[in-house]
Amino acid sequence: MGAIKKIALAYSGGLDTSIIIQWLKENYDNAEVIAICTNVGQDEDWDAVEQKALNAGASKYYLGDLREELASDYIFPMVRAGAVYEGQYMLGTSIARPFQAKYQVDIALAEGCDALCHGCTGKGNDQVRFELTYKALAPHLKVIAPWRIWDIKSREDAIDFAESRNINLGEISKKNIYSRDWNIWHMSHEGGILEDAWNRPEESMFRLTKSPKEAPDKETEVIIDFEKGFPVGLNGQKMNAFDMMKQLNKIASENGVGRVDIVETRLVGMKSRGIYETPGGTLLHTAMRDLEMFTINNDALHLKQKMSYDYADLVYAGKWYTTARYALEEMMKKITEYTTGSVKLCVYKGNAWVIGRKSPYALYLEDLASFGPSDYNQKDAEGFINLYGLSTGVTAMVHKDLEDGSGQAVEMKQMAASFHDK
Amino acid sequence: MGAIKKIALAYSGGLDTSIIIQWLKENYDNAEVIAICTNVGQDEDWDAVEQKALNAGASKYYLGDLREELASDYIFPMVRAGAVYEGQYMLGTSIARPFQAKYQVDIALAEGCDALCHGCTGKGNDQVRFELTYKALAPHLKVIAPWRIWDIKSREDAIDFAESRNINLGEISKKNIYSRDWNIWHMSHEGGILEDAWNRPEESMFRLTKSPKEAPDKETEVIIDFEKGFPVGLNGQKMNAFDMMKQLNKIASENGVGRVDIVETRLVGMKSRGIYETPGGTLLHTAMRDLEMFTINNDALHLKQKMSYDYADLVYAGKWYTTARYALEEMMKKITEYTTGSVKLCVYKGNAWVIGRKSPYALYLEDLASFGPSDYNQKDAEGFINLYGLSTGVTAMVHKDLEDGSGQAVEMKQMAASFHDK
Amino acid sequence: MGAIKKIALAYSGGLDTSIIIQWLKENYDNAEVIAICTNVGQDEDWDAVEQKALNAGASKYYLGDLREELASDYIFPMVRAGAVYEGQYMLGTSIARPFQAKYQVDIALAEGCDALCHGCTGKGNDQVRFELTYKALAPHLKVIAPWRIWDIKSREDAIDFAESRNINLGEISKKNIYSRDWNIWHMSHEGGILEDAWNRPEESMFRLTKSPKEAPDKETEVIIDFEKGFPVGLNGQKMNAFDMMKQLNKIASENGVGRVDIVETRLVGMKSRGIYETPGGTLLHTAMRDLEMFTINNDALHLKQKMSYDYADLVYAGKWYTTARYALEEMMKKITEYTTGSVKLCVYKGNAWVIGRKSPYALYLEDLASFGPSDYNQKDAEGFINLYGLSTGVTAMVHKDLEDGSGQAVEMKQMAASFHDK
Amino acid sequence: MGAIKKIALAYSGGLDTSIIIQWLKENYDNAEVIAICTNVGQDEDWDAVEQKALNAGASKYYLGDLREELASDYIFPMVRAGAVYEGQYMLGTSIARPFQAKYQVDIALAEGCDALCHGCTGKGNDQVRFELTYKALAPHLKVIAPWRIWDIKSREDAIDFAESRNINLGEISKKNIYSRDWNIWHMSHEGGILEDAWNRPEESMFRLTKSPKEAPDKETEVIIDFEKGFPVGLNGQKMNAFDMMKQLNKIASENGVGRVDIVETRLVGMKSRGIYETPGGTLLHTAMRDLEMFTINNDALHLKQKMSYDYADLVYAGKWYTTARYALEEMMKKITEYTTGSVKLCVYKGNAWVIGRKSPYALYLEDLASFGPSDYNQKDAEGFINLYGLSTGVTAMVHKDLEDGSGQAVEMKQMAASFHDK
Repeated sequence: MGAIKKIALAYSGGLDTSIIIQWLKENYDNAEVIAICTNVGQDEDWDAVEQKALNAGASKYYLGDLREELASDYIFPMVRAGAVYEGQYMLGTSIARPFQAKYQVDIALAEGCDALCHGCTGKGNDQVRFELTYKALAPHLKVIAPWRIWDIKSREDAIDFAESRNINLGEISKKNIYSRDWNIWHMSHEGGILEDAWNRPEESMFRLTKSPKEAPDKETEVIIDFEKGFPVGLNGQKMNAFDMMKQLNKIASENGVGRVDIVETRLVGMKSRGIYETPGGTLLHTAMRDLEMFTINNDALHLKQKMSYDYADLVYAGKWYTTARYALEEMMKKITEYTTGSVKLCVYKGNAWVIGRKSPYALYLEDLASFGPSDYNQKDAEGFINLYGLSTGVTAMVHKDLEDGSGQAVEMKQMAASFHDK
Repeated sequence: MGAIKKIALAYSGGLDTSIIIQWLKENYDNAEVIAICTNVGQDEDWDAVEQKALNAGASKYYLGDLREELASDYIFPMVRAGAVYEGQYMLGTSIARPFQAKYQVDIALAEGCDALCHGCTGKGNDQVRFELTYKALAPHLKVIAPWRIWDIKSREDAIDFAESRNINLGEISKKNIYSRDWNIWHMSHEGGILEDAWNRPEESMFRLTKSPKEAPDKETEVIIDFEKGFPVGLNGQKMNAFDMMKQLNKIASENGVGRVDIVETRLVGMKSRGIYETPGGTLLHTAMRDLEMFTINNDALHLKQKMSYDYADLVYAGKWYTTARYALEEMMKKITEYTTGSVKLCVYKGNAWVIGRKSPYALYLEDLASFGPSDYNQKDAEGFINLYGLSTGVTAMVHKDLEDGSGQAVEMKQMAASFHDK
Repeated sequence: MGAIKKIALAYSGGLDTSIIIQWLKENYDNAEVIAICTNVGQDEDWDAVEQKALNAGASKYYLGDLREELASDYIFPMVRAGAVYEGQYMLGTSIARPFQAKYQVDIALAEGCDALCHGCTGKGNDQVRFELTYKALAPHLKVIAPWRIWDIKSREDAIDFAESRNINLGEISKKNIYSRDWNIWHMSHEGGILEDAWNRPEESMFRLTKSPKEAPDKETEVIIDFEKGFPVGLNGQKMNAFDMMKQLNKIASENGVGRVDIVETRLVGMKSRGIYETPGGTLLHTAMRDLEMFTINNDALHLKQKMSYDYADLVYAGKWYTTARYALEEMMKKITEYTTGSVKLCVYKGNAWVIGRKSPYALYLEDLASFGPSDYNQKDAEGFINLYGLSTGVTAMVHKDLEDGSGQAVEMKQMAASFHDK
Repeated sequence: MGAIKKIALAYSGGLDTSIIIQWLKENYDNAEVIAICTNVGQDEDWDAVEQKALNAGASKYYLGDLREELASDYIFPMVRAGAVYEGQYMLGTSIARPFQAKYQVDIALAEGCDALCHGCTGKGNDQVRFELTYKALAPHLKVIAPWRIWDIKSREDAIDFAESRNINLGEISKKNIYSRDWNIWHMSHEGGILEDAWNRPEESMFRLTKSPKEAPDKETEVIIDFEKGFPVGLNGQKMNAFDMMKQLNKIASENGVGRVDIVETRLVGMKSRGIYETPGGTLLHTAMRDLEMFTINNDALHLKQKMSYDYADLVYAGKWYTTARYALEEMMKKITEYTTGSVKLCVYKGNAWVIGRKSPYALYLEDLASFGPSDYNQKDAEGFINLYGLSTGVTAMVHKDLEDGSGQAVEMKQMAASFHDK
């Protein structure tokens, strides 16, 4: 397998990446393996993770604290863009991967590695997301994806491999029903009984959010402040991105907000069922969707809303560091230049309703919209409708032969005349 | 104002259209006015409405029962298409107007009328929707829109007019805080304290849905069956469209489901705040969105989801009877040809979650998606990613001068080589 | 390589597919190979092709005459849709592949074959187009793509293989500068000096079209008649699809019309330079684009024009037999329901200009558009502009602080007032 | 008509705007009228124009030389964006109006005017473009559009008005067959015999371009250099935007390049027939379209191409100074960040062909695309196709019951097995 000497491994501390260290050394002529961890908000005993990496044979261990930047530079732009994959999935895993892979590439380049390795399986989306980032940031480095190469075909095989090499797996056991991903934005659950798409997830599966049924029986009001499409404050208090996420997650989780159960379309074509908990994210999206309707005019808003699907597709595909995403980002930034203001939400037993919004740049003018007297000229509407509907009327005249009430054919000329005359 | 002799009036029984009858007679040389009512599912004492119309001077009265067709031929296609205006408004008023206007035109043609009249104000969307339908179906008839012509500028003026002509307004009074629209799909509320967009709607304003806080503290499961993208059964029982809507409305309303508070962009450009109750509709949309993800492949699904915005824009604009809507309908129909199956919802205190789905045409194959062994060939993924990411890698190589770990420039040729070699 | 017994081979009579027959027999345990040819309009000595196939070891030979159907069922819908890949490539190869593959699959199923084989290389688009059709029509059959498997890496290797097996290659020689594809719609040229994208193609490379410089120095008028978006007649004479293509090709080729030189993006990500001759097709597209502007109203036309890119992408990708293409077809069919009429072209030394058009369903009404007096009410325009531009004005007022001439700040209220007042 | 005291008039020197000065004074209580002219590249005796304005009663005259900026800040971004309305009209009039109106507004604000006036008719697009710019830049100023107000209904009426007031019209006569617009980008022709859409334009109508039949019978090569999507040099010589346009117009006009004959959809709904000469612009668009295919990767290129329709719609509508256009501009700018290089065109008797292109950022790599040996791994293609086509195959299996050759039903399980197995 060539002259690979130093490998940068995206290390999680889990079963797969632990045995990968050993497997790499066995298969790449005892190459050096650097274990690279990223703290993206998951709960973890980081000292134990480091110990596990070194025990498993890593020559070096890195831990990147990506939390603040993940929120401010990845998640918030995505919220601004309104990106929700297939209208349902809030892209919790997708948004973290490019940043995690970028951190790995940065270390790899600094350390002079000649290969990048990840522990994603050959069926999922994450392999694509990691490797597209590798291609974008270090296309000259080799890529090793053990799950697509080795003979280990299941969790059980992996544990057998570990045991045969005396790798200490700590509390990892053969029984791990769900495949999970966790960061400051979300937690996902796949596998187990979820594989039958008709099965309802068990309450015990959820980790972040309280069941709506056990949430408090009282409403909580939350006010989120935005500047230029970015969240900047909560209930009147300015805060940085990571703190914002923590606070919002706390409020939403406590009130059972943010669960979805979907069957999405993976990049590699197949459908896949997943349960997602995105508590704070649900509040952010709800608020931002409202504020954009309040502050962006129709052409720009409708353009933005359609393009948010393209943006979501790019994020889902791991195409963060690509021309298309950069270009959509510029567009979104410009469109939300005046999306500054506050949205008031009411959170209650699984629900998050918008109940008010205000902005110095509100395009909603009470005077224009109200039913009472105003200086809006209602007569303008007649001209507007006549021209706005002109093509509809002309098309109708041209496409069909109309009759008047008496069964008499209406002549084109006569139609045209009354048409203009109105 | 010409030789108008017989006018078909879209009559609601409310204040505006009642005084319009008299106003038309006064201003169009005692022309005959035919009052045309439509039952679209609102609660109404229809005998009283008829009496009111005749009292006000109508020569004839028609009442069309549009309920079943409104559900089956207008609402269901719209749900199939996934049309939600600006991602938030379920188009409750918009979807009824073209059908109501079509019924009016049908009568007008049968009766040999020479003009069509409606009671919409000059600031709103409904005038556009009515008149675009007129243009599409009877472009040779004249259109009269009194609110854009007369001197009556407010509700108070209208009542004064009625009193000066001794028109009996029944229970209509000067105090009518909210402007409302009601049919089998929804009820809308505008005006009053809502005009300040920061104000939360009062609980007393809602008419269809119970407050989530007062909804039962237990979950209700609902199973909706679809055939080719259309709802056909509820909890295992086949039913027609109107009954389906009634049942779904009952369940959802009882459980506080279906309220939204939004500031939308009107056709005539201004922003407008509205509160909508769409109880059963919320269940239908939720279920249909899920089933389409389960049964439609990625290209077609993503195409459909983006086009649903165009479909929604057309419905909102009253462009139901136009080439563009007809064409999108054909597209939506084809895409949902196999969207047959059942979706299981859990309804609870304002929430409606999908908790399971099944279909004879599920594109979700447990075997393909699962984490255990299968005959999916993981090695395919390597080739896929290499080509799927080829342009990302080539772009990266071309756009930047990369360095390897040692600060050495990476030659293009070397990059290209390792790129292919991977 | 398993128990493959009978292979359906897409046979062209060229070098590659000739040696494939022998290679298949050697590598699949002397499996039976059925050679399947398709006449899509290329010039060929079909008897010689048959002889070559049987000489090379095929057990059976089929020749499908696909010309009329290729034109009527594939090319004409594509022209109706306005599909041109990346705005430049008229999809000449792409449109034929699905039909050729379908013919092959039909024979394979009728003959009880257990595998499908094609001779496309592993770098191009055609492998994708063939195999996507296989997957769509016979996903249970195995696929053999020798170029991705064998050790033959070049034209020279292939000839060596043939010589070592005594396969008679007729006039095929090692020197074949360009890679070409030819059917009734187009001829493509790749390779040779074209690989340097700065090189101009040599005149001697072209095969279908006369050089514009050698074309007659006089104009030729051509009138093409369409019904519902499909070409049906030429210069007043009804004709079937294949005859239409023949006639149009003759006129256009004679006059040097239809050459393009482009660098397109292949499905597998890389850019590729090609020269295309699409003589008759250029006339058809030019005429159809004009007639659609004449007969389709703005909403539908603009929808169609944007969707034509999606349609083109699907054709380019070989996704002819997919839900998305079927759905777009329904849309295009509906939109062009009244695209009936005639377009007059002037053809001259490489040019094809539209110089007139007429239709019973023209949406162009002289009276409406002319500059002289008419019954169009110019005053409508004021109302139209006021509302059409309302959001632009409101946005301007909200986004900036304006000054009047004297350097005085203009108050929002004052702006709003004059705004409405206009 | 209120207290309007000082009016800024967009003055052309033509018949309409000459009588407007007098008409304004008569109808607005002898208000002061400032005549504002713009040089956008049309041929004009500017001294005579000034004299005419002052003779007609203008209190002041301004002449703005907008040529360089029109090219660099309006036309070039539009070319970069690839904006061509309805795929045919190169937006020659549309692109100039916002800048002309902006110049008018700037003077109006500096002079302390209280109203803006233009001489566009009530049927066309230009009134919309002028007034949308007014709304965007000075929403507090009043707008006067005499053609929508006065009783003058034709050219003849206008001349009568002028004669009755002794306004010296110079060489303007009643006979002016075509309505024309001219600037450095194009000249348009409407009216006269063109109103019958079947009539071919007379050769004598054209003003900018030589007839292809009278163009030289020899090819001319032109090389255009671009930087970041903007034209910067011609045949190796750097030049500013206006000089570039002049040079390109000269070459193209001399060779009969740039005529189109179309029926477009006006903003106010009706269809309208126009003939356009856009000589240099045709060269620029042709070259830029080619270079973008050469330097932009597939995702970004396809995104750009679809969005160019939206950009064109905004320009056509006069929505230059709107959020949506600003946002698309940012997108286009980002996408073309590396669209730097040269395109070689051959111009000959009406034709403009690309015959070569080069770029330091070419994404076309000879090595990757060529047919000879390279280090591209053809085996990747198999994996790519299997996953790229996975959903097509799964959909086929799920949607239909297939038969094998013998008429036996193929079991789903069997299909799936061979599917994966391939």
